[in-house]
Amino acid sequence: MSFNSFGRVLRFTTWGESHGPALGAVVDGCPPRLSLSEADIQPFLDKRRPGQSRHTTQRQEPDQVRILSGVFEGKTTGTPISLMIENVDQRSKDYGEIAQAWRPGHADYAYDAKYGIRDYRGGGRSSARETAARVAAGAVARLVIPEVQIHAWVAEIGGDAIDPANFDLEEIDRNPFFCPDPAAAQRWEALMDSARKAGSSLGAVIECAASGVPAGWGAPVYAKLDSDLAAAMMGINAVKGVEIGAGFGVARLRGEENADPMRPASDGSNRPDFLSNNAGGIAGGISTGQPVVVRVAFKPTSSILTPVPTVNKAGEATDIVTRGRHDPCVGIRGAPVVEAMMALTLADHKLLHRAQCG
Amino acid sequence: MSFNSFGRVLRFTTWGESHGPALGAVVDGCPPRLSLSEADIQPFLDKRRPGQSRHTTQRQEPDQVRILSGVFEGKTTGTPISLMIENVDQRSKDYGEIAQAWRPGHADYAYDAKYGIRDYRGGGRSSARETAARVAAGAVARLVIPEVQIHAWVAEIGGDAIDPANFDLEEIDRNPFFCPDPAAAQRWEALMDSARKAGSSLGAVIECAASGVPAGWGAPVYAKLDSDLAAAMMGINAVKGVEIGAGFGVARLRGEENADPMRPASDGSNRPDFLSNNAGGIAGGISTGQPVVVRVAFKPTSSILTPVPTVNKAGEATDIVTRGRHDPCVGIRGAPVVEAMMALTLADHKLLHRAQCG
Amino acid sequence: MSFNSFGRVLRFTTWGESHGPALGAVVDGCPPRLSLSEADIQPFLDKRRPGQSRHTTQRQEPDQVRILSGVFEGKTTGTPISLMIENVDQRSKDYGEIAQAWRPGHADYAYDAKYGIRDYRGGGRSSARETAARVAAGAVARLVIPEVQIHAWVAEIGGDAIDPANFDLEEIDRNPFFCPDPAAAQRWEALMDSARKAGSSLGAVIECAASGVPAGWGAPVYAKLDSDLAAAMMGINAVKGVEIGAGFGVARLRGEENADPMRPASDGSNRPDFLSNNAGGIAGGISTGQPVVVRVAFKPTSSILTPVPTVNKAGEATDIVTRGRHDPCVGIRGAPVVEAMMALTLADHKLLHRAQCG
Amino acid sequence: MSFNSFGRVLRFTTWGESHGPALGAVVDGCPPRLSLSEADIQPFLDKRRPGQSRHTTQRQEPDQVRILSGVFEGKTTGTPISLMIENVDQRSKDYGEIAQAWRPGHADYAYDAKYGIRDYRGGGRSSARETAARVAAGAVARLVIPEVQIHAWVAEIGGDAIDPANFDLEEIDRNPFFCPDPAAAQRWEALMDSARKAGSSLGAVIECAASGVPAGWGAPVYAKLDSDLAAAMMGINAVKGVEIGAGFGVARLRGEENADPMRPASDGSNRPDFLSNNAGGIAGGISTGQPVVVRVAFKPTSSILTPVPTVNKAGEATDIVTRGRHDPCVGIRGAPVVEAMMALTLADHKLLHRAQCG
Repeated sequence: MSFNSFGRVLRFTTWGESHGPALGAVVDGCPPRLSLSEADIQPFLDKRRPGQSRHTTQRQEPDQVRILSGVFEGKTTGTPISLMIENVDQRSKDYGEIAQAWRPGHADYAYDAKYGIRDYRGGGRSSARETAARVAAGAVARLVIPEVQIHAWVAEIGGDAIDPANFDLEEIDRNPFFCPDPAAAQRWEALMDSARKAGSSLGAVIECAASGVPAGWGAPVYAKLDSDLAAAMMGINAVKGVEIGAGFGVARLRGEENADPMRPASDGSNRPDFLSNNAGGIAGGISTGQPVVVRVAFKPTSSILTPVPTVNKAGEATDIVTRGRHDPCVGIRGAPVVEAMMALTLADHKLLHRAQCG
Repeated sequence: MSFNSFGRVLRFTTWGESHGPALGAVVDGCPPRLSLSEADIQPFLDKRRPGQSRHTTQRQEPDQVRILSGVFEGKTTGTPISLMIENVDQRSKDYGEIAQAWRPGHADYAYDAKYGIRDYRGGGRSSARETAARVAAGAVARLVIPEVQIHAWVAEIGGDAIDPANFDLEEIDRNPFFCPDPAAAQRWEALMDSARKAGSSLGAVIECAASGVPAGWGAPVYAKLDSDLAAAMMGINAVKGVEIGAGFGVARLRGEENADPMRPASDGSNRPDFLSNNAGGIAGGISTGQPVVVRVAFKPTSSILTPVPTVNKAGEATDIVTRGRHDPCVGIRGAPVVEAMMALTLADHKLLHRAQCG
Repeated sequence: MSFNSFGRVLRFTTWGESHGPALGAVVDGCPPRLSLSEADIQPFLDKRRPGQSRHTTQRQEPDQVRILSGVFEGKTTGTPISLMIENVDQRSKDYGEIAQAWRPGHADYAYDAKYGIRDYRGGGRSSARETAARVAAGAVARLVIPEVQIHAWVAEIGGDAIDPANFDLEEIDRNPFFCPDPAAAQRWEALMDSARKAGSSLGAVIECAASGVPAGWGAPVYAKLDSDLAAAMMGINAVKGVEIGAGFGVARLRGEENADPMRPASDGSNRPDFLSNNAGGIAGGISTGQPVVVRVAFKPTSSILTPVPTVNKAGEATDIVTRGRHDPCVGIRGAPVVEAMMALTLADHKLLHRAQCG
Repeated sequence: MSFNSFGRVLRFTTWGESHGPALGAVVDGCPPRLSLSEADIQPFLDKRRPGQSRHTTQRQEPDQVRILSGVFEGKTTGTPISLMIENVDQRSKDYGEIAQAWRPGHADYAYDAKYGIRDYRGGGRSSARETAARVAAGAVARLVIPEVQIHAWVAEIGGDAIDPANFDLEEIDRNPFFCPDPAAAQRWEALMDSARKAGSSLGAVIECAASGVPAGWGAPVYAKLDSDLAAAMMGINAVKGVEIGAGFGVARLRGEENADPMRPASDGSNRPDFLSNNAGGIAGGISTGQPVVVRVAFKPTSSILTPVPTVNKAGEATDIVTRGRHDPCVGIRGAPVVEAMMALTLADHKLLHRAQCG
């Protein structure tokens, strides 16, 4: 039940603050004899790494991961895998203003109210840097579910959505937005530039699909696959909404439109073919064999140059702007994090299913 | 990590199937010396109880709760509280068709794929009857958080939404829809009648607000209050989407629109006043002192009289209709369940906060 | 982390007080498609049932178990199994003295100090009746590990130990003491009669061996099989000591005496033969394939007719005697409970091992 | 439920192998605003550190701890505290023999049977070096329970016990054995020298007492304080037995001898005075306000120069001796580990009690 852990059998714990010496994750419960080296993890960290285009924060973090335990002669041993990423570019700056006043949209006030103390440097524990640890853990989880392919992409920035007709998975890695629609990517360049120049920021919607998930992962009633996915996604910084499959759209469907019809398998197997996937691959908390599909809403970055009214520790009204290096759209770098949380949740449920059902 | 439990300190476990002899919940970790009797629980079960209007299933279940342990001389003792509700109206019928074919939109196929066995009578464990146990547990949770007021209402049925201008909390209990807008309630009568007569069903959106939650409940990073709420809500049968505060709407806001500005407290306290509540009362996973606001999407009931294509156990294509007594809009009776899950999540986090922060 | 649950994957929660209407257990995580009916559970409850000889309490409890959920057409479905046992013989008596004064050796004072309230009727939740729920749950666990044979016996009463030379497993069920040594059983008749007539009580040591446990169950470092067994056994009422294998005896051995030597398997398998079993079948927290052996110390029943000095609620010195129907040696009926906890711990670790190692 | 975590609210996870680059612990759930620096932890590591006398292993490890997160300006922030200790003296040696044959008394065979892979260098994860991480975590736990004083000592080596009449707490730090009896300490010098010269090893019994624990910590039925302490202690490498209070001795007492009588408090408080402490400060799983007393049996070090029969990977009979630098009596350095586990268990239960009972 620890505050900083996630998962049931494949369980990981993260630690670290934005401006501490390092951050990391301990992945416990990983099956033995899987091939694992830093090279299996680094590419995923590189995707999330800041400073790769003008559209993300200019903080320069190499985000080099080190494996400190749990691997022997290139194989996992079944013991906890400790992953560490050093913080390199904690630029020294004056945090006086942030220390004294609560930034609206940030966790500053809530942390002070809860703990009576706050590491205000770069957001401390509530910094999006923590998600690097999840991405590293997620890379390990992927090894546990080689049968599954996971892809996340940005589906919408600032209200401007991709056109499904243009969807091309290959495009995702060809632009700085993880955008599968080249036309949208082009529009977003201008949108992002404009927001950044205005000292503002933009929200985003991420979509993620996992194919290859067999039917049967998940469990009723409180260890539902969708319930765990919702927790996983809502636990990502800046996320305010989660949908499975057709999501809120189901509320506007009739029963006969919503229920995904089945037909005998065209491949002759005893697995039925589904004719639609409003369920997002999950029924009754258990996977159906269809792609598991999630949509996640990211709020706009709260660290902006536009002044926002707030209160300082002396209890006086003031305005605050958050200088420094920030992502104008934190949702973009959320895509690799969503993928990681999808991988971690699925891998955990694979093992959990194996525990109960052999 | 059990499959049928929820909560960390105040933890409850439910059991029971739709057509078994009974269902129930064990609530563990409840503080001692709270006044508790069946009369504290029954009103909430009565709200959820079927058969109270023509718009819900005609199954007649008294849903009388019995407290079997954990209470002595009218007070909780700190030991587990066992709650039991007998199933009375398990009308005998022919389940042959359901036993032989998977109902689209239901958990039938997923259960068979996972367990290789399925209690097909009334949906077994995946029946919405299980939520009676949650509602009973939720009534206990409310006693743990007397400082909090929780209200859920139906905000939308079949795509027809309430008008915020008409919002009146008092109206909720005056119509069969938990609808705070009398005009919408009137429209929904016709909408529901039409769907029922068509052998179809409708989706719904439930909103729930908890006021009186002090700042400081919740925790980074994986025991976030919003993360746990998302799990709680997505774990309710038929739910496919969860939003906190402005939810998906945040993805279309600019940073300065989204961040809830603060001003010195008008009551002279050291708690700031917030000028908006896009955050839904939660920042960085921790409550801010504003109302905690959740929106939940329910799919239309999958048990409908309209035939849907499916597959039978012999692997042949067939159509299925689900006869019997079903809610034409399962979301309506979801409102008391959403309230219960809100109460359970908040009560758990109150205790959790007290554990760490005294 | 609930207070009244045990286990990780196969997890059970018990509820109920000595003089409430009923007590029970919810077993969660049980694999599907196991044959299960009340007849699989009742024999184990019958072994633990009071009133079967003059050497146990004369309370008459049929201890009839009912399965309320989780079983369909005689098979487990993978959903929670709710087991209930009604309390029948809660003889009405005057609890005034127990309500007013703390009985030494009992949990009375500790409960009052913790909860500020106490169900004093028959010990409430701290009554040994709670163990009936564990025995019922244990019977389910046995079905999960058909490859394992579990036997517990009383090895010592009041300091009088069995003679290993007389050990005969068949004898266990032939006397009222679960005693494998007929000569000791005969001596214990007199010992027990004498203690009972003196209004006193006796302690006991229970031994339990599980054979058929394959090598590989358990886990370093805090989910060790021996660590979990120690928790399981020390959690039984009246237990004050737990040993694995040679137990405290190892502290008096030299390294070369303690280490269990290995030799190539006589059956030609690649599992070694061990030449001794000081380790009690567990090394590094993981089973070795040898019998898992535990020894458990039970204190003498604290409910005795001999007056013991104590304090009443007015803060005055007084003496107390505990009238009523009590076991003169609570350890005897501990044997089926020790077996149950062994079964539950092993079954859980079997599933846990399967989760991680396939 | 992770395999390498311990605790419920104050929960820690350890990682690391004997011959990896480092080992560490993540402590989660620590209350905020406690003063914490490396200087609060290092003294406890120094007590456990090898190479301080000729009676412990000659491996030279500075065991310098680094705090990587969770502390800001000298205070805990309520976020996870990451502690890391680098391995410095992993002397390169030929592990061929250990890699090829299972050392009796070690976890070698069990690890291979479970995982199919084993980091054989210095015992890998099953090395006693892992306990350094627990000792570091335990130092943090002590800050959570300033009202409690914890002392562990060696009560017996190789069957030679201390004389209670000579017991002097001050002596513990004056000899290399954590021995409170100077006469015994002197005898043990010779005993240890003799065992070491014979290439053999000795077992030990550690006792630990915690005073200042208020009445009310702990919980029935499966989160009992004694149950959790038993798990904590039995989880330490080489431990095979755990006793609470009079332990196995209770099995030889009569009811009236065992029950600790109470008298009105001599200090006028409403807490009774107990006239004995056979219960070891715990009744019904809950602390009574008396000292919490535990006894723990450590087996003799299995790494000895005396040859022991075993089997190699080719399935052939062979003998093995374990060269290298080993503690002739691993129990001695167990004393700081027992203290750490006592601190961790009590601190967790303090927070747990606060959660439920305010």
